[in-house]
Amino acid sequence: MSARKAKLPSILVSNDDGIDAPGIEALVRELVKIGSVTVVAPDKQRSAVGHAITMNYPLRVTKFQKDRKFFGYAVEGTPADCVKLAIATLLPRKPDLLVSGVNHGSNTAINVIYSGTVSAATEGTILGIPSIAVSLTTHGTADFREAAKFARKLAAYVLKKGLPNATLLNVNVPAAKATDIRGVKLTRQGITRWVESFDVRMDPNNKEYYWLKGKLEILDHAPDTDEIAVRNNYISITPIQFDLTDYKALEAMRRAKFGELL
Amino acid sequence: MSARKAKLPSILVSNDDGIDAPGIEALVRELVKIGSVTVVAPDKQRSAVGHAITMNYPLRVTKFQKDRKFFGYAVEGTPADCVKLAIATLLPRKPDLLVSGVNHGSNTAINVIYSGTVSAATEGTILGIPSIAVSLTTHGTADFREAAKFARKLAAYVLKKGLPNATLLNVNVPAAKATDIRGVKLTRQGITRWVESFDVRMDPNNKEYYWLKGKLEILDHAPDTDEIAVRNNYISITPIQFDLTDYKALEAMRRAKFGELL
Repeated sequence: MSARKAKLPSILVSNDDGIDAPGIEALVRELVKIGSVTVVAPDKQRSAVGHAITMNYPLRVTKFQKDRKFFGYAVEGTPADCVKLAIATLLPRKPDLLVSGVNHGSNTAINVIYSGTVSAATEGTILGIPSIAVSLTTHGTADFREAAKFARKLAAYVLKKGLPNATLLNVNVPAAKATDIRGVKLTRQGITRWVESFDVRMDPNNKEYYWLKGKLEILDHAPDTDEIAVRNNYISITPIQFDLTDYKALEAMRRAKFGELL
Repeated sequence: MSARKAKLPSILVSNDDGIDAPGIEALVRELVKIGSVTVVAPDKQRSAVGHAITMNYPLRVTKFQKDRKFFGYAVEGTPADCVKLAIATLLPRKPDLLVSGVNHGSNTAINVIYSGTVSAATEGTILGIPSIAVSLTTHGTADFREAAKFARKLAAYVLKKGLPNATLLNVNVPAAKATDIRGVKLTRQGITRWVESFDVRMDPNNKEYYWLKGKLEILDHAPDTDEIAVRNNYISITPIQFDLTDYKALEAMRRAKFGELL
């Protein structure tokens, strides 16, 4: 029994909605079927934190045990902090896989830039662990079970097949009935933008404050983008990298001798 | 006189070290020579915040005027918040250029991912403004004047020549005497990693806390990387994009029919 247990792959789970979120609960319930799962997640919601890390403040870590299967650590920090802490200190050895999510809300197109869910998987990749970010494309009432089931299947697949070095998978699952989902699509990051404005309001002490609001505009309607794939009820898988170099621009700038006269 | 003034290009300046930092002061002193400058910057240091934005809390904005030339707004938020606020609300019109910096410390290689300085320029690019991030590669005592001078020259160059759409420039200036700087190099993002550990300490109430520490390891010593260029006393300019798709992996995964059996 313990020999069999030792063979189970170890899976690190994180998110940005916080350790109490229903999305991470659904994910853990599925992943324990294929691996030995440890959760290291923010103690509370840390959405849209991008790839923030905490260097100027100490991090508090609290052991967390919901039940026999859902346990780990709650961290007063960002998703990237959680992954760094897990790998450097909290886990006895490097995990075989990292899964971040299931996020409440899509992480497609420009939102990838702001996403804490994706940043946990990016940090895992930087640290040499095959990593997957999973999001459910709704901000309304959500049933995370189908997305979590898919995450488990994909996790098993990645554990077997591996991932290219320095590549993570950004997965977006449409909030549709299982029977309405049309399949899996490999996609590129779409092009959307937020048309933004700020509400200017008065607080009870008559001091002004600003609150961000935005409306999403889709600038690229191609079916091979993450944004359109999920809108067409496909599960979208986008391979993501953290080399941000714009090689096309670099070539063009070299040809144009950019900066030589500076 | 006022007609001549109206022709001056408008430049938005931000940073992540905070509106009181010496790096932004040096930058503004140079940029006012070529443009009409407005500063919209965090009220205090926000290093390593990545591309965080504030959605769940209101933002406070305070008018800031150091003197006749250095004025704008201090924002209780991240660099990306500052740029969003500036464009959507605070500025009368879209600026012709955004310059973020001068950061105290390099933003090369893997650090690009964590950088608030770069994220301000990324946000500017997302919003359609030619954008430049400038960093000085020292965490010690710093003289920002040479870096600021170079930023001014590059700003004038970009105002004239433009930038490719959706590309920003990540500039790193070595902390060397002007006479020791060997020139400008167009580079790609280097490959480094932080070998990290966490100090586990006790607070005065005997409660544990963790503090991140790390040692940088260079994994790619090629001279065309940002990291090595600055170490060789070149000013490094890297074109950066926010499409994170790993197209090579995407092609390979399509050929391998990745996920078709899921």
